[in-house]
Amino acid sequence: MTPTTDVPPTIEVVGLDADDTLWHSEVYFERTQRRFVELVSRYVDSDVDVLDRLARTEHDNLGRYGYGIKGFTLSMLEAALDMTDGALGTEEIGQILAAGRAMLDHPVDLIEGVDEAVTALSDAGHRLVVVTKGDLHHQQHKIMASGLTDRFERIEIVSDKDPDTYRRVIASMEVEPARFCMVGNSVRSDVLPVLAVGGHAVHIPYHVTWSHELVESTEAVPTLASISELPAWLASVAAEQAG
Amino acid sequence: MTPTTDVPPTIEVVGLDADDTLWHSEVYFERTQRRFVELVSRYVDSDVDVLDRLARTEHDNLGRYGYGIKGFTLSMLEAALDMTDGALGTEEIGQILAAGRAMLDHPVDLIEGVDEAVTALSDAGHRLVVVTKGDLHHQQHKIMASGLTDRFERIEIVSDKDPDTYRRVIASMEVEPARFCMVGNSVRSDVLPVLAVGGHAVHIPYHVTWSHELVESTEAVPTLASISELPAWLASVAAEQAG
Repeated sequence: MTPTTDVPPTIEVVGLDADDTLWHSEVYFERTQRRFVELVSRYVDSDVDVLDRLARTEHDNLGRYGYGIKGFTLSMLEAALDMTDGALGTEEIGQILAAGRAMLDHPVDLIEGVDEAVTALSDAGHRLVVVTKGDLHHQQHKIMASGLTDRFERIEIVSDKDPDTYRRVIASMEVEPARFCMVGNSVRSDVLPVLAVGGHAVHIPYHVTWSHELVESTEAVPTLASISELPAWLASVAAEQAG
Repeated sequence: MTPTTDVPPTIEVVGLDADDTLWHSEVYFERTQRRFVELVSRYVDSDVDVLDRLARTEHDNLGRYGYGIKGFTLSMLEAALDMTDGALGTEEIGQILAAGRAMLDHPVDLIEGVDEAVTALSDAGHRLVVVTKGDLHHQQHKIMASGLTDRFERIEIVSDKDPDTYRRVIASMEVEPARFCMVGNSVRSDVLPVLAVGGHAVHIPYHVTWSHELVESTEAVPTLASISELPAWLASVAAEQAG
């Protein structure tokens, strides 16, 4: 497939979030959290909300650890020691450590339709950039293992997704904000800060969302059910603006 | 101070390593390792080399965790559980976790002469880029806290310092390799891969070097005793090439 027109598309650069947009991620966090609850619950009173205590420890450590599985594992260990007053055994500590390692070692699991959609976007002449938060080492590893690397012009692993980050990413792609569209599963991280700097954004919800990413939004956000709909949606935006 | 000549310096772009080049880092790892030995030694036979076991665990986890304090903390926990067969108490586990948090929370501690040297380089018309390995979140935090940010044109936090990384960094600065000079405390990471791609490099040894960074080199590497000597050294290279 080659571009069907010599006119560059209205949206020239497409930014793609990675975790829960290109591949599954949150499901593995949730699976590990369920295992964490099993391990810890027998050592705490039944009125303790184990998941809530873990979420608070994670939140308190976000400034220190940033995003990613290593910080999540350290927060699990800290929360487990705190809420059991050290009654937890080293056996369980070892299992929590191993659960973190298993998450890091898990193969990349592409979301259905991603390979075809990314290929279609690239064939339609869009320049693609991955914009993802989180742990540099692990994100690079996942991108390499995804088999999609050659479709991306650039990979931006950022420590936070705020308007300044997007301004910098858009400038580094040498494009006007109006010709940039970000695609992701988080309204808070992938949509609102991009709209704030004059870019386009599309929300593709994932079936589970990390509590930290939940946000109330009053803005109308274009939403697609699947990344498979993205190439046609971008073409329709171009047609609309042309006609 | 303004540039003394309109001719751009022979070496236009200076790349600066961060940990143990701009600020102290390895001393804090060593301090934490000494604490680790104290905590673990009473649970292991006297013929066990605690530090060696830790180094091996770190090395085995490098592909999984990458560089940085979070991975180091997880490796300390894993090594402690392994070598004590779980005999270690949760009290000690909590202390190892706390030691990792304390490292992350430690204020940035600039090496003597760095502030003046970076200012002199900038005043002499050099464009400066920080090229550092390690944890994205923590490195960004340290750079922000260093008070040096406005002197740097770009900050590149990379997952490894190999020739391809330097090729990419040098290209992103839009300069020829021959007009780029990397400065750092590791011959393995800051010098050899830069020479391999046709750039200049200067070694400024730090008084302790992480075992992973030790390398045998047969190449003659320009070496300075302190970063304070760097501005004059770069000026002398320019004078030599001009005359």
